[in-house]
Amino acid sequence: MIPAPVRPSALLTDLYQLTMMQGYFASGLHTQTAVFDLFFRKLPYQGGYAVWAGLEEMLDTLETLHFTEDELAYLDTLGLFRPDFLAALRDWRFSGQIDAFAEGRVVFAHEPLLTVTAPLWEAQLIETMLLNTLNFQTLVATKAARCALVAAASPFGGEVIEFGTRRAQGPDGALSAARAAFVGGATGSSNVEAGQRFGLPLTGTHAHAWVESFEDELSAFRAYARVYPDSTTLLLDTVDTLSSGLPNALTVARELRAAGHELRGVRLDSGDLAYLSRTIRAALDGAGFGDVKIVASNDLSEGVIAGIIAEGGRVDVYGVGTQLVTAGGPGGGALGGVYKLTQLNGQPRMKLTGDPVKSSLPGVKRVWRGVDGTRDGDSTFAWDVLTLGDEPQPGQTVTDPTNPLRAARLPATLQWEDARQPVMRAGKRTQPTAPLTNIQARARQELARLPAETRRLLNPHVYRVSLGADVSELRDTVSAHLRGKAG
Amino acid sequence: MIPAPVRPSALLTDLYQLTMMQGYFASGLHTQTAVFDLFFRKLPYQGGYAVWAGLEEMLDTLETLHFTEDELAYLDTLGLFRPDFLAALRDWRFSGQIDAFAEGRVVFAHEPLLTVTAPLWEAQLIETMLLNTLNFQTLVATKAARCALVAAASPFGGEVIEFGTRRAQGPDGALSAARAAFVGGATGSSNVEAGQRFGLPLTGTHAHAWVESFEDELSAFRAYARVYPDSTTLLLDTVDTLSSGLPNALTVARELRAAGHELRGVRLDSGDLAYLSRTIRAALDGAGFGDVKIVASNDLSEGVIAGIIAEGGRVDVYGVGTQLVTAGGPGGGALGGVYKLTQLNGQPRMKLTGDPVKSSLPGVKRVWRGVDGTRDGDSTFAWDVLTLGDEPQPGQTVTDPTNPLRAARLPATLQWEDARQPVMRAGKRTQPTAPLTNIQARARQELARLPAETRRLLNPHVYRVSLGADVSELRDTVSAHLRGKAG
Repeated sequence: MIPAPVRPSALLTDLYQLTMMQGYFASGLHTQTAVFDLFFRKLPYQGGYAVWAGLEEMLDTLETLHFTEDELAYLDTLGLFRPDFLAALRDWRFSGQIDAFAEGRVVFAHEPLLTVTAPLWEAQLIETMLLNTLNFQTLVATKAARCALVAAASPFGGEVIEFGTRRAQGPDGALSAARAAFVGGATGSSNVEAGQRFGLPLTGTHAHAWVESFEDELSAFRAYARVYPDSTTLLLDTVDTLSSGLPNALTVARELRAAGHELRGVRLDSGDLAYLSRTIRAALDGAGFGDVKIVASNDLSEGVIAGIIAEGGRVDVYGVGTQLVTAGGPGGGALGGVYKLTQLNGQPRMKLTGDPVKSSLPGVKRVWRGVDGTRDGDSTFAWDVLTLGDEPQPGQTVTDPTNPLRAARLPATLQWEDARQPVMRAGKRTQPTAPLTNIQARARQELARLPAETRRLLNPHVYRVSLGADVSELRDTVSAHLRGKAG
Repeated sequence: MIPAPVRPSALLTDLYQLTMMQGYFASGLHTQTAVFDLFFRKLPYQGGYAVWAGLEEMLDTLETLHFTEDELAYLDTLGLFRPDFLAALRDWRFSGQIDAFAEGRVVFAHEPLLTVTAPLWEAQLIETMLLNTLNFQTLVATKAARCALVAAASPFGGEVIEFGTRRAQGPDGALSAARAAFVGGATGSSNVEAGQRFGLPLTGTHAHAWVESFEDELSAFRAYARVYPDSTTLLLDTVDTLSSGLPNALTVARELRAAGHELRGVRLDSGDLAYLSRTIRAALDGAGFGDVKIVASNDLSEGVIAGIIAEGGRVDVYGVGTQLVTAGGPGGGALGGVYKLTQLNGQPRMKLTGDPVKSSLPGVKRVWRGVDGTRDGDSTFAWDVLTLGDEPQPGQTVTDPTNPLRAARLPATLQWEDARQPVMRAGKRTQPTAPLTNIQARARQELARLPAETRRLLNPHVYRVSLGADVSELRDTVSAHLRGKAG
């Protein structure tokens, strides 16, 4: 019953990927073995971490990616491509290997989240699709984690549901956002198609239009409760929350109880949510309806949720829409993930450019995650380090990725794990697609292992990502060589 | 050769639309005739206008929208829906009518951009899909218009192309953005699938990886020019723009000319774009390459483009990516379009709520656009007015939609046009799908008819949208009635 997934087409790429591919093909360079790293340079939302999302979908897409006859015919109309190249595209498949962080792990700036090793023209084509999938889902999963962590920190508990479809970037923007929000910790979505495709728990109340369709609010509430006696959440603000919505909801709650049912919840969608939720909680509790949940919505964000909790608000479920699916707020909007060539035919490669912060790290790197067993009980993440060689752990001295002057010695007490794993070999997944609930559980465990000061919403402690001595030496060597050639 | 469009599923909706539909169905209210208005309350980007986009796609979707057997089977698994309701959904089709601004028109806050008249359960289901399509495309088309108008205002001309796929919200986010950017004035896209689907002109250069794949930059440039002798644009900043990229590009430009070809362009992707473009323009002109275009990219926005031009920059083509497809910048990120019930079975309806700015306007409205024939030559847009009746033009006295204290008299000199048109009747389009180039041309004409002070990027003159006396009277009557009932 799950519909066949709508996979991105091989044409979901930038034109220059195809013109470069033909260039490599025409120059006989297309089969050289290339290594590309995917990474970002800045954490979103001015925050301390990101939740890596989209990987499983991307791998599913990549396994079957190919050019259809229609697509080849279209490319032919552009007048840019030669028959022998188009013929070669007919047989194009991704045959390379990928190493990556497992989806749901927490990740940081400057570390290769994913490394592609493949014939150059294969690695080149997929750049756009990889970035499109992984940038956006990581951005939204991170936003969801920020909202969910804040909500859960309320003394009364609290969860986050996603309902931003109407403000999302097109149909698939909404689906991708619903999936990624779940990975990051949202417990459900309002998007029915996302429910079908990804098995997400669905959630929903009713709209103002429902109330306006009846003679008065009480009739509208009663009609809804009649249809959904065990799952009714009533929207209180169509007329006035406290003077109309609340008393009418209490009437219906009593009527439901008399008939052997219970009102599930009430929803606030305007006004001062901290004040209203406190007032309504007290009224519900006072009337014997302590189990009726309070749902709140209205342009929520992690900052607004934190404010409601700080003022003693009593919201049980935060419905986050626009800010979640569009990744709003300072430092949001987009994740600037990039995909850079680091090695070709065994030779290290890098981009220098006029802006040192935009240069890339040459060589095939390993990512180590150092765990501090002495903190917070057992296993707090403490430090990530990139190295080149096959040593069982990083060396003692490391430097900052963007400033070699900032050197440090690694504490001897850290335990090191190889943070990434093989996820694709010879164009095939190494493991079946992970269920989304497992990915969500992994993200929850990962977030729990972050230092509390790194999880903070504002001015978090900057988690350290460092370069091993071999990585910085290789960067120095390659950039000196490039500068020499530039004269 | 154009692939079958991937239309949104009927499940691309919020769960509450379906639960409300069943509620109406169970209460025998689903066939009542409802009227909904779609509008937004705030112009995006703190700007003075919006470009209305997405309508034609939405109408195509709506004409064929239905529930498949798989979708009905999925709904059945949710345990929320009764067999008779699911059976009725099997035959569900949109049979209503829609009046709307033509796609590409400039539109403003508080006016109904689109009005749906349909059986209640039909009008309810489509809300999410309508908002998803129209909010995002209008947002991006408006951003594109802002960028394109600024670029075109350079004394040397200038155009905008879209290449944000890698930062867009999933595959369809990228496609929708490419389409909408074209409507707003972008002259092309890098997204090959968007080229195929929408017939957009495609554009592209090469990436840093191309240069890094060769022994040195000059070899890389020569190899590219060999494959594309008549369409080569060289990326200059892989090593260093002025000391390496520029001299190597000039060498290749001379070699191409000697072989009977011409270099098409150079691209700058880092550094100070104003300074670099001036310097490179001078160098190219001095070497006899006055026709070589300068393309610039690197997190551009309308503000950055304006800055480059203000400093005498000489960019011919601005490649705008992230900021365009994610609608970045203050007042961007999302368009808060909403869809509100205004009439049911001939009776006016409205939402009151605690926040007067979030209340809606009851009644079936007409939108008049007043044109000032005395300004700027001929036909500048001057004033939009909403009325209820069938009069051939608005009455003299109007009020502000959010503040009745702000009343005004309409100048007698304005010419009035009925700004919207029937676009769907009995569930069928009234016209065939408009070609995208026509929509783009319409947007260009519309933008030219805006007062210059309304087109301004910052602190624009607020274009007036007013309520006719009949509209504000009806609002007063209905809200007094609702307040009376609320007690």
